Amino acid sequence: MTGEGEAGESLVRSRPGGLRELQGETQIERALRELRLVVAAGHSNSVTVVAFSPSWEMVASGSYDRTVKLWEVGTGRLLHSLAGHTGKVASVAFSPNGDLVASGSRDGTVKLWEAGTGRLLHSLEGHMNEVSSVAFNASGEMVASGSYDHTVKLWEAGTGRLLYSLEG
Amino acid sequence: MTGEGEAGESLVRSRPGGLRELQGETQIERALRELRLVVAAGHSNSVTVVAFSPSWEMVASGSYDRTVKLWEVGTGRLLHSLAGHTGKVASVAFSPNGDLVASGSRDGTVKLWEAGTGRLLHSLEGHMNEVSSVAFNASGEMVASGSYDHTVKLWEAGTGRLLYSLEG
Repeated sequence: MTGEGEAGESLVRSRPGGLRELQGETQIERALRELRLVVAAGHSNSVTVVAFSPSWEMVASGSYDRTVKLWEVGTGRLLHSLAGHTGKVASVAFSPNGDLVASGSRDGTVKLWEAGTGRLLHSLEGHMNEVSSVAFNASGEMVASGSYDHTVKLWEAGTGRLLYSLEG
Repeated sequence: MTGEGEAGESLVRSRPGGLRELQGETQIERALRELRLVVAAGHSNSVTVVAFSPSWEMVASGSYDRTVKLWEVGTGRLLHSLAGHTGKVASVAFSPNGDLVASGSRDGTVKLWEAGTGRLLHSLEGHMNEVSSVAFNASGEMVASGSYDHTVKLWEAGTGRLLYSLEG
């Protein structure tokens, strides 16, 4: 990185919303663009999905390279690379307190990971096709998953147990 | 805003991940902190939930003030204030293409909004208690909602029709 864009006051204008503009791009636009580049460069294939942690301190990215990667937003540092899926990662979500990450994959599994350590906690098996969306409930105790197999399944996060399956 | 933190090269260090640090706080940390302040200042009561659009160009915020607000990330500009809920907004989510916003509220409804115009498209009624989570499926055609009434409901986004309800 050169000093380009790091110039002084003359290039910095306040916008009505309060965020600063630097040479036609605001600081946050540039920072988020850089973060996207860092994330993309960290995967060996295309990134399919990204999600911010509730505190915006971490970003989780899923990729065709079959990994989920956890990044520190402030520095762009790779915290953990979560390996285990055997197909592209199609969906990721953080739990409300940011402790857990759920990922859904073309391999038909939902995997639950400990965000702080990158450890695989549970692999949730039952879907017959790609898991295209995952979401925690407000307490973080349950995970819902939607799949191209036309079911929505509800799982207990603590045990990985399947609670319900809805045919769509 | 004063010139504090806008200083020159001497205060700017590259970190391994590639994002720049300014006086102990990286640009993105500062920008996200400022964005949070802009969002908080725009609501008349506490913010309960925030979500980025898939492209990271918009942020949706929900609040005890019963509104959902849509913000331009790059400038912190308020785009739309979505009024209609009669209880605190507990959950918000963008559709995968960013065109729709779903919000869940203590008033028991899920509301679907057009992100570009702020127009209310559907108010989804059926939950008997706070709607604590909302999520779109990958195609954006369905919305799942979880509630303190111990049900998960699945809705058709285009029509607002209830497709399924799961007792938890």
